[in-house]
Amino acid sequence: MATGNINVSVENIFPLIKKFLYSDHEIFLRELISNATDATLKLKHLTSIGEAGVEYGNPTIEVRIDKEKKQLIISDKGIGMTREEVEKYINQVAFSGAEEFLEKYKDSAKDSGIIGHFGLGFYSAFMVANKVEIITKSYKDEPAAHWVCEGTTEFTLEEADKKTHGTDIILHINEDDKEFLEEHRIEQLLVKYNKFMPIPIKFGTKEETIELPEDAPEDAKPETKTVDNIINNTNPAWTKQPTELENKDYNEFYRELYPMQFEEPLFHIHLNVDYPFNLTGILYFPKMGQDMNIQKDKIQLYQNQVYVTDNVEGIVPEFLTMLRGVIDSPDIPLNVSRSYLQADGAVKKISSYITRKVADKLKSLFNNNREDFEKKWNDIKIVIEYGMLSEDKFFEKAQAFALYPTVDNKYYTFEEFTEKIKDNQTDKDGNKVILYASNEDAQHSYIEAATEKGYEVLLLDSPIVSHLLQKLESTEEKISFVRVDSDHVDNLIKKDEEKISKLTDEEKEKLKADFEKVIPAEKYSIQLEAMDSNAAPLIITQPEFMRRMKEMQQTGGGMFGMGNMPEMYNLVVNTNHELISEILNSKTAKKQERLIKQSLDLAKLSQNLLKGEELTAFIKRSFEMVK
Amino acid sequence: MATGNINVSVENIFPLIKKFLYSDHEIFLRELISNATDATLKLKHLTSIGEAGVEYGNPTIEVRIDKEKKQLIISDKGIGMTREEVEKYINQVAFSGAEEFLEKYKDSAKDSGIIGHFGLGFYSAFMVANKVEIITKSYKDEPAAHWVCEGTTEFTLEEADKKTHGTDIILHINEDDKEFLEEHRIEQLLVKYNKFMPIPIKFGTKEETIELPEDAPEDAKPETKTVDNIINNTNPAWTKQPTELENKDYNEFYRELYPMQFEEPLFHIHLNVDYPFNLTGILYFPKMGQDMNIQKDKIQLYQNQVYVTDNVEGIVPEFLTMLRGVIDSPDIPLNVSRSYLQADGAVKKISSYITRKVADKLKSLFNNNREDFEKKWNDIKIVIEYGMLSEDKFFEKAQAFALYPTVDNKYYTFEEFTEKIKDNQTDKDGNKVILYASNEDAQHSYIEAATEKGYEVLLLDSPIVSHLLQKLESTEEKISFVRVDSDHVDNLIKKDEEKISKLTDEEKEKLKADFEKVIPAEKYSIQLEAMDSNAAPLIITQPEFMRRMKEMQQTGGGMFGMGNMPEMYNLVVNTNHELISEILNSKTAKKQERLIKQSLDLAKLSQNLLKGEELTAFIKRSFEMVK
Repeated sequence: MATGNINVSVENIFPLIKKFLYSDHEIFLRELISNATDATLKLKHLTSIGEAGVEYGNPTIEVRIDKEKKQLIISDKGIGMTREEVEKYINQVAFSGAEEFLEKYKDSAKDSGIIGHFGLGFYSAFMVANKVEIITKSYKDEPAAHWVCEGTTEFTLEEADKKTHGTDIILHINEDDKEFLEEHRIEQLLVKYNKFMPIPIKFGTKEETIELPEDAPEDAKPETKTVDNIINNTNPAWTKQPTELENKDYNEFYRELYPMQFEEPLFHIHLNVDYPFNLTGILYFPKMGQDMNIQKDKIQLYQNQVYVTDNVEGIVPEFLTMLRGVIDSPDIPLNVSRSYLQADGAVKKISSYITRKVADKLKSLFNNNREDFEKKWNDIKIVIEYGMLSEDKFFEKAQAFALYPTVDNKYYTFEEFTEKIKDNQTDKDGNKVILYASNEDAQHSYIEAATEKGYEVLLLDSPIVSHLLQKLESTEEKISFVRVDSDHVDNLIKKDEEKISKLTDEEKEKLKADFEKVIPAEKYSIQLEAMDSNAAPLIITQPEFMRRMKEMQQTGGGMFGMGNMPEMYNLVVNTNHELISEILNSKTAKKQERLIKQSLDLAKLSQNLLKGEELTAFIKRSFEMVK
Repeated sequence: MATGNINVSVENIFPLIKKFLYSDHEIFLRELISNATDATLKLKHLTSIGEAGVEYGNPTIEVRIDKEKKQLIISDKGIGMTREEVEKYINQVAFSGAEEFLEKYKDSAKDSGIIGHFGLGFYSAFMVANKVEIITKSYKDEPAAHWVCEGTTEFTLEEADKKTHGTDIILHINEDDKEFLEEHRIEQLLVKYNKFMPIPIKFGTKEETIELPEDAPEDAKPETKTVDNIINNTNPAWTKQPTELENKDYNEFYRELYPMQFEEPLFHIHLNVDYPFNLTGILYFPKMGQDMNIQKDKIQLYQNQVYVTDNVEGIVPEFLTMLRGVIDSPDIPLNVSRSYLQADGAVKKISSYITRKVADKLKSLFNNNREDFEKKWNDIKIVIEYGMLSEDKFFEKAQAFALYPTVDNKYYTFEEFTEKIKDNQTDKDGNKVILYASNEDAQHSYIEAATEKGYEVLLLDSPIVSHLLQKLESTEEKISFVRVDSDHVDNLIKKDEEKISKLTDEEKEKLKADFEKVIPAEKYSIQLEAMDSNAAPLIITQPEFMRRMKEMQQTGGGMFGMGNMPEMYNLVVNTNHELISEILNSKTAKKQERLIKQSLDLAKLSQNLLKGEELTAFIKRSFEMVK
């Protein structure tokens, strides 16, 4: 048996790095700025522990474009490299100097902010440059070095005359990548990836207005001065302690994150944990509409203040991807598949930590200022309701703050509401019946009938509400939800009440036959009811079960095949209404038919079912009658 | 000046390969099956040119799971490797044997189907396995070799006693990746990535029913036999010539691609080009609904029959991503960013080739069987209309086949339609006015008024129709589109017709004042018109320009800020209608108010504006009137 060592040759791996490693070429800049930041932070650390013989000062990282020479230059004033270090760190693909540094200074440098490597760091430069130069001088008293590589595996290395410590990386940009010589493109990338990095990044200059002194004459014009254009906020809100921040600071940071967002967030949640994983961040609840999908993907993920992605799927529970804000954690694996993420233990813990923090915050908002929480409910309910459906733990916690608004704009918790209705709305089998409407306008006449009878009606208008009701019915005992238009008002909550009908059984039979002559049986099944004589003479209803199953299937779920079932309606005939007696006793069949049809049209109007040609004909007839 | 060579050490690159190279761990199987396929195809090639001293036969690739040993085994009966070849090809990370083979046999092997490398091929096995074994025997008369590596950079290599040529790859699956020891998971991956690869892939066995002979007794039970479970169709439709295929073959292949899709496609387009780039494929037009977004991402991209992705953004023009089918091209760069793809010359050519082929196919369908094309129009229009908006070249070509249906279900090209209406629908300024409706039900009374006047009304109900109209108006001369409810019928197409009013100017002034007393000015501006006495007494209209701009902003575009403007309506009062005279001459103010309100309610009903409490009150009032 022979043993040996696997080889990898630079000739083989170089093309892979250039072409395939990153799906986005643009991240070369993130990598190089991360290196420059690390070089600066290393020097900061060494000066702080007295190991460097130089002043730290206020170093910046500078990015410059030289269009004529087709160069992009990144300069830092950090630790620099000696010739030996260049040979050691640069000429060895994928060797991470940052990791070695952290290893060496592991006790003192723990909180230094050094980023470490994302991938191949420096070599990603070759994705956009055919030639790369490094001019670097170490903080140690040694001559500067000048390294040049033209994208082959050969390099040259000689002395340079750089006088101050730090590193310049000079990229000779490829013809195909000349977008990276455009100022707006580079500024865009710096803003995207480096907006919150800890060392100031200078890119060009800008004009700034000098404020006039207070005693300046009224016609004095403010002057401007040219100042460095600093891209980044080196000290973003999420890196601070909650005690250092006021509400207005959070709102200001929100505007920094979303400059095009004019509305203020409703509230925020500051995340801050360092055991068993490291995570900081701020999540915001924005005002939300009804469409879940368009609101997603606004949370930004960072690692040590370096922007990574705005796709936090798998890290944040799905229902919270509708929130906004930032999460910063060095413990989230990068560049791995979503299925891998979901299986990762640390990520699972992060996800449930975030869920718990959100639930706690909602509970404290509810407890501390219920009135304010109620006002915000309609703008946040979509997140909460979706969370209740998708995460059982959140469902349990949400019982304490999830609200159920009535059509009169009162807000109850589930417990409060069932307590309130239990006397009046318990049916003969002991079930508490919760009435609800999904649309105040479209179901107005049904809501009115129910409230007139003294019932409370909830207004539940979220797109996923049928799923939530289904879940509540299966969790709570002896509870059922019934939409106000699923039957006529006396049947919504079945009690042992005797109903007295004005009509004899014979009359009823005749009445039913008369209706069935005029009304198509495939569309409506006719249901005679002895109701209040002041209730409507004809009412169209749609049974709860069928309607809900259809709705559930439309939003994913429910019983298979229900989505394609035809709509089924009942036509409730109020045998105690005067008009119905008139129909029964019509002198001619023609008059009877006219009365039935006009009444049916009105009942259809009430359920939004009178449309098109039928509606036009109804309106014409009605104009005649107005005259 | 010194020169030197950049190094890469396996210690550094190995972790990167394992963790970062591919975002999806699952693709290791695609890589290994591609290698096995190449090994088999190489042998096929060598036997075909008489360079191999063995029989080719009917080799399969076999995939096996050994749950107890936690192994996944991939075996081929291909070319195999000698010990020297293992040392050369395997011990050198990222060295592609397939490329070397293609180079060596470049003339004869051009059409051999050999896949070549996607990335790091074999080494991707270490993403899911902590130990990998290779047992391989070359077709040359040399002993077999056994290579073992435990994920470090060391390996062992010894002789093995394998007797037949070919290669077994044995993966010892990681604890974290044990999903890859589940049969359903492996079958899922094989179906996803290898369903159409050219060498049969065997995975387990299945039961197959033996058909009974014709003379079998009636009560004979069919027997079953156990057969190899072959995953793939080695000869998928797109690799054949269009002349070899009938319509039913295309439909069968559609079902192979989308087993859960029960509806047949409307038609297909066979793509086949080998210069200046290589591309084959079949695109299908499915029946399409109105929602553009949910229909995307159904086209599958292959390279040499290996599945790559179902995201063809950047390769296929956006409007065609609503189609289904496959595209197979070795010329599309993999693993690169979308912005890179869009800038790539070959990809640009591919995209415009596909657009042209689709336009040509549509034109020939229209020319060959217009009746059938008209029947399919509503199911395909969303693609065509979106294409007309987004690609100018397609817009030009589409003039020949894009259809404009009327409310009576007749279909015209734009040219035919403008020819048809030019006499009757040219206004006093010489503009051809095209009337349209967006909803037959909701705009029924307005459509009826227009058709009664002898106008043709188009039914244009796509979500993006306002953008398309805008484009047509700016392309064609003296054309304007006007929705039927944007003014009363006599004003839709302004002609020099004298209108005779029954009312004097004084009466008109009084009438206007009477209406303004009852009707809120912020909601309706009142417009007195001398119309036909049989037209409706009151009509609510919404001016074309405002409405269209609002619609355009809702679907992206239009004029900034229009989306949030309040709805503005006109209330057209027909001064020649009997009811209006009655209102003017009402005896009491109370009666006048009642008449105006009831009429306004009816006009609102006709525009779907009477809702909620107002509607309930209207219905109650109307039931009273029926009695």
